[in-house]
Amino acid sequence: MTASFDDPVLRVTVPDKGWLERLDDLDDRVQLEVWDFASPQPEGRIDLAVRPYTPTADGLAELDPTRLDILQLQTLGFDGVPDALPAGITCCNAVGVHEGSTAELAVALLLASQREIDAFAREQRQWNRRFTSSLLDRRIMLLGYGGIGVEVEKRLAGFDAELVRVAGHRREDDRGVVHGNDELAGLLPTVDAVIVAVPLSDATVRLVGDEFLGALPDGAVVVNVSRGKVADTDAVVRQAGRIRYASDVTDPEPLPADHPLWGVPGVLISPHVGGMSSAMQPRIDNVVRRQIQNLLDGRGPDSVVISP
Amino acid sequence: MTASFDDPVLRVTVPDKGWLERLDDLDDRVQLEVWDFASPQPEGRIDLAVRPYTPTADGLAELDPTRLDILQLQTLGFDGVPDALPAGITCCNAVGVHEGSTAELAVALLLASQREIDAFAREQRQWNRRFTSSLLDRRIMLLGYGGIGVEVEKRLAGFDAELVRVAGHRREDDRGVVHGNDELAGLLPTVDAVIVAVPLSDATVRLVGDEFLGALPDGAVVVNVSRGKVADTDAVVRQAGRIRYASDVTDPEPLPADHPLWGVPGVLISPHVGGMSSAMQPRIDNVVRRQIQNLLDGRGPDSVVISP
Repeated sequence: MTASFDDPVLRVTVPDKGWLERLDDLDDRVQLEVWDFASPQPEGRIDLAVRPYTPTADGLAELDPTRLDILQLQTLGFDGVPDALPAGITCCNAVGVHEGSTAELAVALLLASQREIDAFAREQRQWNRRFTSSLLDRRIMLLGYGGIGVEVEKRLAGFDAELVRVAGHRREDDRGVVHGNDELAGLLPTVDAVIVAVPLSDATVRLVGDEFLGALPDGAVVVNVSRGKVADTDAVVRQAGRIRYASDVTDPEPLPADHPLWGVPGVLISPHVGGMSSAMQPRIDNVVRRQIQNLLDGRGPDSVVISP
Repeated sequence: MTASFDDPVLRVTVPDKGWLERLDDLDDRVQLEVWDFASPQPEGRIDLAVRPYTPTADGLAELDPTRLDILQLQTLGFDGVPDALPAGITCCNAVGVHEGSTAELAVALLLASQREIDAFAREQRQWNRRFTSSLLDRRIMLLGYGGIGVEVEKRLAGFDAELVRVAGHRREDDRGVVHGNDELAGLLPTVDAVIVAVPLSDATVRLVGDEFLGALPDGAVVVNVSRGKVADTDAVVRQAGRIRYASDVTDPEPLPADHPLWGVPGVLISPHVGGMSSAMQPRIDNVVRRQIQNLLDGRGPDSVVISP
């Protein structure tokens, strides 16, 4: 497609120069420029602004909604964004970018905790052979059956474990029952591991607390790739001798160096890197390409989480 | 089935008292007793002796072949056993006991190395967020496509990676091509990871050496769940800045505390625990039950690796 002076021009900002090279084959009607969100909002109207990769809502309140149509996040979560974002700006999250990578990290944390890879890594120069827990023959609960839960299920399918899926409401699909939240208390004593991938909400804040952990059998492992606030950290510290806890998220983040959760036996922490992998860049590039094509074609953007 | 005085009696030894409880429902015609192989071989003829779980051939040369028919190993490997075992004793290995658990550890080591779980475990009290390598979109070579390789393939099927299978000779199956060993040099530069699960043989000793490692692209990871001698340790130490190495086996074992392989950046060692997991006991119990049934039914034993 060639541009002509009467073609509509789409003005898109990207957060750094690397994007200009990766997207240099875009339609001529697209005007691409760099805005890092640290400098002031550029003059003139912007159709689509891609925000830097950050988990916070910092700085969003200063955006001028009369000169920005659509804000594209690079994250799946958007905690705090609805409160901070001025009315009039459409906000889209990054569906399809992080789910696979986060599910992969959940399985990595589960396997590392069960097979004690974290302990072996710390015990280098020793040769402490011992029996560890395998996933074979175990029951593993997937708590939260959204984008990440589905990707965890796909990855665990070959491990000869039984998967117990739990979502908001009980339903059935071609792989059997998806249990409802109301069955949780009855199911927890029957599983050997729980992968927590629920969204943060009033219903899930501090869900992984004394009652939840106390219902699990000895030696069970809880993997958290949801949000730090879904767990009651004090309860985790209290129960960590009896159960294992492997988490990519903490409350607060970053977890301070003197926090009691560090160094508790049976606790493995990664610093919120579920989506921070080599899988991210090609996928976020594709999301932005697709959004640009949507706008060029006169459609609305995909994955709208806040309407103007 | 009830026993009568003219029924044939099968005499079976097991390495510790736990076995007596786990197998207490056996056919009445089976006489079960404990022999730990540390004390002298019991008087009289033994039909089937289950050896303790050990990777060595120590002590086998002292067995009296006129009083022992079948030796059942609890390991899949039997390095050194053919040389040590007196002629006249049938030896069976533990097929189906360790493959799943070892494949699971191979995936655990691969994921831990790629997503830097080992480094995060060592960096506790820090919060070093960084991008790591995902398996998504990667090419992973399965070098050795026997019992362990097949189980690794099953587990990696859901990770959105492309699997490149290599066995002795090129063939095709319903999932595509299994490449032959003669294609190895051409394939190594095209893969991001190699899981080594070949048996130790004249053809595979020191296979993972300078030439092999040098053919891999920067940042590739090699996972070894085969045998320590399949790798040239000096070459691994030389190349470990450029590639990653995650291994459950070393040469020698145990790896001495002052060995240069410990502490090399990008190297993760577990102390030969592939089969040492909760998956083992129910599976080895089943192997012994099946062997006993074979003998009661007048069939020969399964999984014979040395004939009398």
